[in-house]
Amino acid sequence: MAGNGGASDGSEVGVDQPAGASPWTYNSPTKPEAGTQETTPLVHKVNIPPNNGLVHDVTGPIKEIFFHDESLRQFQNQTAGKRAFLLLKYAVPILDWLPRYNPRLFPSDLVAGLTIASLAVPQDLGYAKLAGLPSVYGLYSSFVPPLIYAALGSSRHIAIGPVAVVSILLGTLLKNEIPDTNDPNYLRLAFTANFFAGVVQAAVGFIRLGFVIYFLSHATIVGFMAGAAITIGLQQLKGLLGITTFTTKTGIVPVLRSVFTETKQWNWQTIVIGVCFLIFLLITKQIGKRWKKLFWVSAIAPLFSVIVSTVIVSQARLDKDGVATVGHIHKGINPRSAHQLFFSGHYLAAGAKIGIVTAFIALTEGIAIGRTFATLKDYRLDGNKEILSFGLMNIIGSLTSCYTTTGSFSRSAVNFASGAETALSNIIMSLVVMVVLLALTPLFKYTPNCILSAIIIAAVTGLIDVKAAYHIWKVDKVDFLALLGAFFGVFFVSVEIGLLIAVCISALKIIVHVIAPHTAVLGKIPGTNIYRNVLQYPDATRIPGILLVRIDAAIYFANTNYIVERLKRYVSREKEYSSTGPNGVPLQYVILELSPVMSIDSTAVGGLEDILGILKRQNIQLALANPGSEVLKRLKNSGFIEHLGQEWIFLTAGEGTQVCSQLLGKNSN
Amino acid sequence: MAGNGGASDGSEVGVDQPAGASPWTYNSPTKPEAGTQETTPLVHKVNIPPNNGLVHDVTGPIKEIFFHDESLRQFQNQTAGKRAFLLLKYAVPILDWLPRYNPRLFPSDLVAGLTIASLAVPQDLGYAKLAGLPSVYGLYSSFVPPLIYAALGSSRHIAIGPVAVVSILLGTLLKNEIPDTNDPNYLRLAFTANFFAGVVQAAVGFIRLGFVIYFLSHATIVGFMAGAAITIGLQQLKGLLGITTFTTKTGIVPVLRSVFTETKQWNWQTIVIGVCFLIFLLITKQIGKRWKKLFWVSAIAPLFSVIVSTVIVSQARLDKDGVATVGHIHKGINPRSAHQLFFSGHYLAAGAKIGIVTAFIALTEGIAIGRTFATLKDYRLDGNKEILSFGLMNIIGSLTSCYTTTGSFSRSAVNFASGAETALSNIIMSLVVMVVLLALTPLFKYTPNCILSAIIIAAVTGLIDVKAAYHIWKVDKVDFLALLGAFFGVFFVSVEIGLLIAVCISALKIIVHVIAPHTAVLGKIPGTNIYRNVLQYPDATRIPGILLVRIDAAIYFANTNYIVERLKRYVSREKEYSSTGPNGVPLQYVILELSPVMSIDSTAVGGLEDILGILKRQNIQLALANPGSEVLKRLKNSGFIEHLGQEWIFLTAGEGTQVCSQLLGKNSN
Repeated sequence: MAGNGGASDGSEVGVDQPAGASPWTYNSPTKPEAGTQETTPLVHKVNIPPNNGLVHDVTGPIKEIFFHDESLRQFQNQTAGKRAFLLLKYAVPILDWLPRYNPRLFPSDLVAGLTIASLAVPQDLGYAKLAGLPSVYGLYSSFVPPLIYAALGSSRHIAIGPVAVVSILLGTLLKNEIPDTNDPNYLRLAFTANFFAGVVQAAVGFIRLGFVIYFLSHATIVGFMAGAAITIGLQQLKGLLGITTFTTKTGIVPVLRSVFTETKQWNWQTIVIGVCFLIFLLITKQIGKRWKKLFWVSAIAPLFSVIVSTVIVSQARLDKDGVATVGHIHKGINPRSAHQLFFSGHYLAAGAKIGIVTAFIALTEGIAIGRTFATLKDYRLDGNKEILSFGLMNIIGSLTSCYTTTGSFSRSAVNFASGAETALSNIIMSLVVMVVLLALTPLFKYTPNCILSAIIIAAVTGLIDVKAAYHIWKVDKVDFLALLGAFFGVFFVSVEIGLLIAVCISALKIIVHVIAPHTAVLGKIPGTNIYRNVLQYPDATRIPGILLVRIDAAIYFANTNYIVERLKRYVSREKEYSSTGPNGVPLQYVILELSPVMSIDSTAVGGLEDILGILKRQNIQLALANPGSEVLKRLKNSGFIEHLGQEWIFLTAGEGTQVCSQLLGKNSN
Repeated sequence: MAGNGGASDGSEVGVDQPAGASPWTYNSPTKPEAGTQETTPLVHKVNIPPNNGLVHDVTGPIKEIFFHDESLRQFQNQTAGKRAFLLLKYAVPILDWLPRYNPRLFPSDLVAGLTIASLAVPQDLGYAKLAGLPSVYGLYSSFVPPLIYAALGSSRHIAIGPVAVVSILLGTLLKNEIPDTNDPNYLRLAFTANFFAGVVQAAVGFIRLGFVIYFLSHATIVGFMAGAAITIGLQQLKGLLGITTFTTKTGIVPVLRSVFTETKQWNWQTIVIGVCFLIFLLITKQIGKRWKKLFWVSAIAPLFSVIVSTVIVSQARLDKDGVATVGHIHKGINPRSAHQLFFSGHYLAAGAKIGIVTAFIALTEGIAIGRTFATLKDYRLDGNKEILSFGLMNIIGSLTSCYTTTGSFSRSAVNFASGAETALSNIIMSLVVMVVLLALTPLFKYTPNCILSAIIIAAVTGLIDVKAAYHIWKVDKVDFLALLGAFFGVFFVSVEIGLLIAVCISALKIIVHVIAPHTAVLGKIPGTNIYRNVLQYPDATRIPGILLVRIDAAIYFANTNYIVERLKRYVSREKEYSSTGPNGVPLQYVILELSPVMSIDSTAVGGLEDILGILKRQNIQLALANPGSEVLKRLKNSGFIEHLGQEWIFLTAGEGTQVCSQLLGKNSN
């Protein structure tokens, strides 16, 4: 990027420049140094890109953003009928893969489906509690949404259902509106929020705005997830210790105060069962991690714990000793809930607000998972299509007593590890949940809550990604601070505040990139023809009287003012330096190295005009080195080049410097 | 930016790379082509920038954004006492300049002050009506705010007072809340909005967030201003034709319908007076434009028109023939209005909302003007300090019966042209307005409204910048469409919708820059060692089996996914092309030219790891050309370079291509 040997990208200069039009043509005595390509003419032929026409100028960037994955490419060059058929298969992928399903894949899908079901059922019971909902709603949410996703989604490995982070976030937000979880409006608001989450997701996917989910930086997500995991874990102390009156806040301080002020409520039987099984679960989890082939041990450990603990409690009737159990769960599949949605009044706005927030968090988790496995197995995933599927899944979920679901980290990993080949594993899991709902719910009557708490704690430990955090620390300290910000926000205050911090940090980082592009004063590395940032290369020498500045970004309205101010500052610093320095040569030339400037807009042209004017009034000559052809075209159209004088546009920073220094010598003689 | 002659910025490669560590050291047979610097060693010594430490890593970008103008530089290296004194002078510049005011400047300032006063008084009467307020509030707003600004502001040429665009925007927003302008709450809401506008401005300035005003692109501002000017002009048809019942909407359709359905209300005396003086005003305006020395003609023409028309109406008693006049104006300076602000209830939120919107529009106009004159006269203007001054001025204004004020285009230009040297001209204008308020208001009793309308029409023609629009059209078609969007939004719908369109277009443009950086597949220009975008240079030849891609932006979390997807698409296209092409060489090497990539964050490192993994699974070797030292440092810390293999990092794209093509030859033999 720095100005350097003659050939450096310089061929874009020289538009319509008649040979010999200026005293500094490229065949001047500067040749030996500027010309580095012995076999090449010094002024290369310039290709000014053809005018693409107005329509292309406008649609180009839009296409880049909305269809950069070329999701519609398959529809090109097809007849109308074929196109409709392709469109249907695109919209409902199950129509594509199910008819040509290879029966030999079935055993893998069956095993995977059964495995994730064994993991899902106990998790669902607990996650629903995190959201402040009765356990059965977790099961409902693992029945309908996976079926919808299996029909519409294109990931082959994602496992759909309630997830911990969305559950706690939803719970926190719902309790802000309705503190009493037994209030029937609480459940209705949960459905309403899910409905709006689905609508928002479907809309984002449909109008292909999916890129918005990348506006949350990875580092803040890692921090937020870790904070949320610890928060969720702390919440489980309620169940694990058998405490009945517990704070509704999620910060660490109120939770620990709750735990230690209510020591009388601690129930030793509950603690013994909970802690034993927690240890068991954590050990099996480690086994699954160490020996990849034994992943199934960690996958079925939760179900095993549920069964064993339920048998213990029911046989010893420990529920009479104060061990809280799940209790009666209503039998039967999802009841309809369309009539329970709020479509007016105060809760409409509240539901919409909660829906929007949870929609994006759910997408952030779900899309990241889908993409991970698609990358691992090399299949294409159309992000916007996936988001649309998530949206439809949640809309239908909200009509069938489900709360917000997405792709789950832990279950998708198990699904993948169990060898799932298609979305059929989701259907099988869904059918197992249906069987549970139809026939097996009475079996959970004596399942102790502490087991669910242990299962959740074991599950959320997976969200604490110490390795990623360490990696971020090593690579990028600023990112690590962002991570800590989100983490401590969740940890000490609440899930929402942590999220807000994550969003603000991410936005700030984007703003830094947008508004304050990198610029550098360049000097020449001794003995070379390379120009480098003098801050980075203190050896680099500068020629008194000449200021060479490189701008490292496309210039447009959002950063033009910054760049102009920055240049003004460089110039005033340089003037101070020149006048006080031992050389005493006043600043006479400012050369802008524009190699990295790939495009400019009308505001940027105005900014360059401003700089030209400011410098002219100070009797300083501006020169440009190596502007790109697109940039040059615009500068020409705007008349800037006429104001500047074509002779002040140089092939390279090196040539510009040389010509200016020769002139300096002449002037001073 | 393109890969090119050996010396191209390549010296950043080779970190800890032992000589001869790979089969492709830079002393290989590739030398003759790669080496373009005869006098230079091929592998330059690399300066990995020193670790700046955590604090600098974090504060650096923040300082760049908030203090890039080095506004606090003067406070460095000073004693505490001196620093406090400097701070006071910084906060209240009048303490700095007034004591050392050069009396010889006084005549200039006096003339300028009187000239802008003669322009301000008639404008104020009309602008207040635009905002739906009684005329006297325009005068109030030209008395207190200019005094405050003169004390706090640092621009020497800006003229403060009500302006047309803010007035109509405020009027539109206020009428949305309270349609009846005679409702006493209307006035109170105007003060409340002004208070919040001031608070928002002061806050933005104080926490140095001033850069937000650059998030509205110049093109959309030009379009918005032109649309607003026409809207304002159309509104004046009411006064100019003497219509009494007029639509409250501002779109062109309802206004013209109002005009032509109420032809019976047209008053010929009004029309004759109005049109004659409008022609007079427009001619004097042209005179002022053509002959710069006669600018005073256009400056005093409004006052002249007011005086002459008032005399005509009062002598001929045309008011009895239906010529509407200003009528009685309350005598006396600004009454207090602190007690009238809404600090609770519904209007609090409405006032805050209106305040925020008008605050930013007022800043956009005011700061642009201040900056223009500062640039012309080469003095420094601390944007955030100015914004803070505007904020304090409007807060105090809201307590003294003023509505939102800012720097006015037309009056500042007159101020500048009349030779104003300091903010004293604002004080003089303010004193003139005070005299008018104290003694001269009865003189306006017979001033016909149509004169005020004519004055406003003549004033707002200056907001229609056809030249700028044509310039934008020539330079940047996309920007021109943005301009049209904002223009037609105002023109056909309303000022707010136009503004909303301007904001959305600007945001979209930023998003395009943020999320979809430019990338290009490079080919070699025949006969050179220059690598260029093959789309731009169709001559450029590519080597089958090798894909060379340049990424033209810093990579960070917001664009990582786009870049990864884009690369995946290039690779899959290339694979199709390679397998079907006549050459039939499968893709084996992907070289990323990273010269323009000045920085990467942890997400970007993850993205590169993803690409590495995807390519590895397809048996394609990744190579990097010319990564910057900061980038290299992070890639090294993250372990990426270890995964990639140091031998796959090349000095330049040219070298990388050559090494890969040699290997291709070996593999195929």
